[in-house]
Amino acid sequence: MGLKYQQSYRVPFYESDAFKKMRISSLLAVALQISGEQSTVLGRSDVWVAEKYGLFWAVIEYELKINRLPRFNEKLTIETEATSYNKFFCYRKFSFFAEDGALLLTINSTWVLMNQESRKIERVLDDIVAPYASEKIAKILRPHKFAKSDEFVEPQEMAYPVRFSDLDMNGHVNNAKYYDWAADMVAFDFRKDWQPAQIFIKYNHEVLYGEEIRALLSWQGQISHHNFNDGGTQIEIHWTNGSEKSGEFTDEN
Amino acid sequence: MGLKYQQSYRVPFYESDAFKKMRISSLLAVALQISGEQSTVLGRSDVWVAEKYGLFWAVIEYELKINRLPRFNEKLTIETEATSYNKFFCYRKFSFFAEDGALLLTINSTWVLMNQESRKIERVLDDIVAPYASEKIAKILRPHKFAKSDEFVEPQEMAYPVRFSDLDMNGHVNNAKYYDWAADMVAFDFRKDWQPAQIFIKYNHEVLYGEEIRALLSWQGQISHHNFNDGGTQIEIHWTNGSEKSGEFTDEN
Repeated sequence: MGLKYQQSYRVPFYESDAFKKMRISSLLAVALQISGEQSTVLGRSDVWVAEKYGLFWAVIEYELKINRLPRFNEKLTIETEATSYNKFFCYRKFSFFAEDGALLLTINSTWVLMNQESRKIERVLDDIVAPYASEKIAKILRPHKFAKSDEFVEPQEMAYPVRFSDLDMNGHVNNAKYYDWAADMVAFDFRKDWQPAQIFIKYNHEVLYGEEIRALLSWQGQISHHNFNDGGTQIEIHWTNGSEKSGEFTDEN
Repeated sequence: MGLKYQQSYRVPFYESDAFKKMRISSLLAVALQISGEQSTVLGRSDVWVAEKYGLFWAVIEYELKINRLPRFNEKLTIETEATSYNKFFCYRKFSFFAEDGALLLTINSTWVLMNQESRKIERVLDDIVAPYASEKIAKILRPHKFAKSDEFVEPQEMAYPVRFSDLDMNGHVNNAKYYDWAADMVAFDFRKDWQPAQIFIKYNHEVLYGEEIRALLSWQGQISHHNFNDGGTQIEIHWTNGSEKSGEFTDEN
């Protein structure tokens, strides 16, 4: 296991949704910010990686497990750790804790190093990852298997134009944005009683300004399957009713 | 002048736009958060105001003057002060400073106290505003005069559906959202060379989930006029070219 890095965090008004809970897109954004802080502390900032090697980090996969979403104004401790890496992939975990130490949620993420020029994945360099003290492993962790869009049953479709405000500093659609686009297709009335308990996100292709997003949604029981631009991004949300307590998990991995 | 309250702030990745500058919508959100913190420190939190008087604060008007937008990862000092108030309106100012003390921008804002039940404006109560030590004034500061939408020349039109992710904790479209909707109608190529130097925003009616926004844009020289839902919200942006230095202002008020 790697070095742990912690930050305390209070959920501001503007990261809270209409149910007074922290937005999932904000969870992902804040997690990314905190891993960036750890990298800076360890002398491996994004600027360092870019200047020394011409590379940048990209998250290609997230898995969120949620016991309870943080609430507006709640004080959290967010912990992150680069857990392991192999030839091409680095694995990083985030844990969000309540003030009493209760585990609210975890985010497991898969990262790659991309070449700034070719925009292609490069091998993980020991010089970049050594300071995190994460374990080098031979095997590739099995990625989540998403339903293919041509298997979607009675899909609902939505077109989202890409606007300037959807872009991040890299000039492409911000990763966190896709979750909003996915969840915005789920009926408000449903969301009053159901919360996400588990979320899988996979990014395959970046989307630039001026493109249009074609989003599909298909239901399978209490799971919503989401597909953007023929698999460019895939999302799967497992919804739970507040009365079902069986979904609660402890931190086993 | 009232009590001043300061916070240091570092601009995170997810509040930075494609030009690596702090998003205007994030500026407004963070400013609001900091004024909320001052209120809490002074024993006048939103919860206190709601529980004791059944009222809540609403911003009805903003004026931003921008010398330079904060950059990604820049360390700022944000200062706020409730400057004065009269029978119905409270005036609050925010100043954003760079690390060397340079004034980056100011936000002047006009606030009202709304009744939670009737959703109507109520008189300002001394018990609520006394701790801020702001000056009670008789006169009403003259609000900015916006172009009326029926005076718009060759308006461009855009329809924005209101999505769940556009809502804030009050269940209506978040104030900061309108700026994004306005600026998203201005061409990307133009925005590469031109920045907002002055912005006026006025909120007249709240918009709820499921409604559709009808946005209009009209140009008058280097000023873009924006109108949402027949004057429900009005925005005026004065754009400046990087080479024009005449727009720079000092803190005279």
